[in-house]
Amino acid sequence: MSEKHIVIVGAGLVGTLNAILLAKRNLTVSVYEKRRDLRREPPPSGRRTTNLALTSRGMAALKQVGVAEQIAPYQVAMFARMVHEVDGTMHPLYYGRKEQFILSTQRNKLNEILLNAAEKFPNLTCFFEHKLTSCSLKTGQLEFLHKGKKVRVQADVVFGNDGAHSTIRLEMMKCSLMDVQQIYVPYGYIELPVAKTKNNDFALEPQHLHLWPRDDFLMLCTANWDRTFNIALFMRFETFSSLKTEDDAVEFFKKHFPDALALVGEKNLRSSFPTWYPYPMVTIKCSPYHIEGKALIMGDAAHAMLPFLAQGVNSGFEDCMLLNSLLDIHKDNFAAAFSEYSRCRKADAHAVCDLTLYNFLEMRQLVNTKTFRLKKKLDNILHAILPNNWIPLYSMVAFTDIRYHICKQRKQYQDQILNCILVLGAALLFFLLITTVIWVYVSWDRHW
Amino acid sequence: MSEKHIVIVGAGLVGTLNAILLAKRNLTVSVYEKRRDLRREPPPSGRRTTNLALTSRGMAALKQVGVAEQIAPYQVAMFARMVHEVDGTMHPLYYGRKEQFILSTQRNKLNEILLNAAEKFPNLTCFFEHKLTSCSLKTGQLEFLHKGKKVRVQADVVFGNDGAHSTIRLEMMKCSLMDVQQIYVPYGYIELPVAKTKNNDFALEPQHLHLWPRDDFLMLCTANWDRTFNIALFMRFETFSSLKTEDDAVEFFKKHFPDALALVGEKNLRSSFPTWYPYPMVTIKCSPYHIEGKALIMGDAAHAMLPFLAQGVNSGFEDCMLLNSLLDIHKDNFAAAFSEYSRCRKADAHAVCDLTLYNFLEMRQLVNTKTFRLKKKLDNILHAILPNNWIPLYSMVAFTDIRYHICKQRKQYQDQILNCILVLGAALLFFLLITTVIWVYVSWDRHW
Repeated sequence: MSEKHIVIVGAGLVGTLNAILLAKRNLTVSVYEKRRDLRREPPPSGRRTTNLALTSRGMAALKQVGVAEQIAPYQVAMFARMVHEVDGTMHPLYYGRKEQFILSTQRNKLNEILLNAAEKFPNLTCFFEHKLTSCSLKTGQLEFLHKGKKVRVQADVVFGNDGAHSTIRLEMMKCSLMDVQQIYVPYGYIELPVAKTKNNDFALEPQHLHLWPRDDFLMLCTANWDRTFNIALFMRFETFSSLKTEDDAVEFFKKHFPDALALVGEKNLRSSFPTWYPYPMVTIKCSPYHIEGKALIMGDAAHAMLPFLAQGVNSGFEDCMLLNSLLDIHKDNFAAAFSEYSRCRKADAHAVCDLTLYNFLEMRQLVNTKTFRLKKKLDNILHAILPNNWIPLYSMVAFTDIRYHICKQRKQYQDQILNCILVLGAALLFFLLITTVIWVYVSWDRHW
Repeated sequence: MSEKHIVIVGAGLVGTLNAILLAKRNLTVSVYEKRRDLRREPPPSGRRTTNLALTSRGMAALKQVGVAEQIAPYQVAMFARMVHEVDGTMHPLYYGRKEQFILSTQRNKLNEILLNAAEKFPNLTCFFEHKLTSCSLKTGQLEFLHKGKKVRVQADVVFGNDGAHSTIRLEMMKCSLMDVQQIYVPYGYIELPVAKTKNNDFALEPQHLHLWPRDDFLMLCTANWDRTFNIALFMRFETFSSLKTEDDAVEFFKKHFPDALALVGEKNLRSSFPTWYPYPMVTIKCSPYHIEGKALIMGDAAHAMLPFLAQGVNSGFEDCMLLNSLLDIHKDNFAAAFSEYSRCRKADAHAVCDLTLYNFLEMRQLVNTKTFRLKKKLDNILHAILPNNWIPLYSMVAFTDIRYHICKQRKQYQDQILNCILVLGAALLFFLLITTVIWVYVSWDRHW
């Protein structure tokens, strides 16, 4: 067992996976989490307690730590986005090829499974209800508050896996030259539950991500393994504020989401209205992620992003896998691994943040346009013809491990080609039309 | 006297000016500063202890609080940048019209004068050696550490005037939806003193800002009222690192700044070399600046910028003046004033940060180009012809109170016109040349 004491702040999904990978390296690992142990006491219902989508990057990490099979019963495969029009018509937009899917996964169940896997290591200990109150990353001295008492901890290496509002990142900002960009989008979201049917079945087709794109706002609905669904409504803060009463909310649903109103139920919608405090969404890009062999931030702490590409957890898991490979290469030399981690992760972390912003636009607005749908069809045809050389953006992100910044570059390049093809196609059509008109005119002339 | 207790964190230049303006409103003001009182114990020599340049925005604020005359003996007027070429030739670039100047001012002296002015108010108290250790901006509870003891303070309104590494800004980031962009440039700086001559005189012409622009690095030298000078050398961190020994530093000066080497003295340069730890420079843009009538950040805490436009302190003083006007308009309603302050200050604070980045490029590189000098001449001619409608960027920033974002817009617009004039001028010259050649040829032909 190594003498090094590794402290991980945050026992969420990324923190726990990171702890497992580090414990497998025979390091002494302590994980400190400010909340209660969710296995003993389920967190209060509300935000961020619902499901997430795992794609191949996230699943690869779960396979590596041997928990992929355990989570399988709590996952629902989703093959397509099902677009719901205002008039009730629906049409699917497949994520990739028709047999490819992403996995809607219960967040808390996955956290439970990872925590159980973590605690099997004798060299790994989890401490709950320990809130970080102060830390000096350069000396490794940390102070936590546990049930009103101060707990002092001495760490050799500190990991900040403490989410978008990371205390470790704020500490790094104080003691290192960290570039940071933190931007809140002017949109917030609320969540609404959809119950099972009376026959104990799913109220909607579960193998789709249901999507109500309304240009300036957007509603999503994903299935849970227990046959319920979760709806998330994303709107501008001022749109939320413009709904003053339950009646306003019902009228709003009747106008924009009539089929969803039937799913949620008018009574439930009314009773949920007083709890509609839209939750903000932030994009955080920063760099570097480390302090000289002493501390590293990963996951949302390093790159918080919008939820629209389902890459928050997937990219966080990929962070852990990258660090693991770098520690292999550098033979557990944290200074060298951290330095290389920061150097090569920046472009990808920044790119995935940009891609989620793009995908928000695509999901709420672009999918409503005919040009987008035409381009999407062309995109899929080119992928079928050139499966390795032409991969649609979503497929690159969800079904490959191509680096995010390469995904972004290839998307831009492919977009230019798609635009060229469309322009050339339109020009050709126009040419054919003119030729036909002339031909008809000449024939008609000769006929007379 | 109002019941409201105003707490200002930071007794630097902006904090002290802010305190005076608030004390004049009959509010109870407490200023907490982590450092010792610089009037009793001068701060250790080193960074940020030297001079700054006050322009009309800053001087307007000092006039308003009645200390402009007191600082006058400690100021040196500067009328132009004096560009030093490698071969020793020099040429001036005037800041505006030949009679316009900015004021090189001793930072600590100004701070002393402001602190003395502040402490004349019976409703204003300054507490030194009080380091903020924790705060809750929403409840106004602050905790300071003073000589090893905790001091708890209850505030109604908290001002963060605590500089670029503001603790109050970090607290705001935790409890409000603040957009933040923090970027370190890859350049650092060191300072070097220049002594008086043996005749007790200035070693250089004091009424110029001396400038050694060397494309990728830059040296500045400004006069102090006591007839010494301060040199600041700005270079990439890797350029600093490439100078490994005293000899390297001397060789570097011989090659790039031979006349400055004579000023500093080879012996002094060698003895200063071990202390060459380049200080980083950061640009911080954020928004909003307030929490609902409870807290506001101003000065470097809200908009840290590069020092190349001399607007750090000037813009901070302008912040105080703006707040003062808004409190007049809103009759001391802090919630309304803060909200309007954030709304209207953002564009200006972001613009001045951008302008300092541009000015860094201008000072280290553009001034070396012939096109820039030609444009600058043209800029001045147009200003002479249209004094109110055409104002060069530097003059707008330094000699007017035109809002920074308008300065930026007008600069871009004027630049486009200058470029057009240069292109048209070149085309006209070319046309004249061709016409002359043809005329000469025709005359020559006829002659024969």
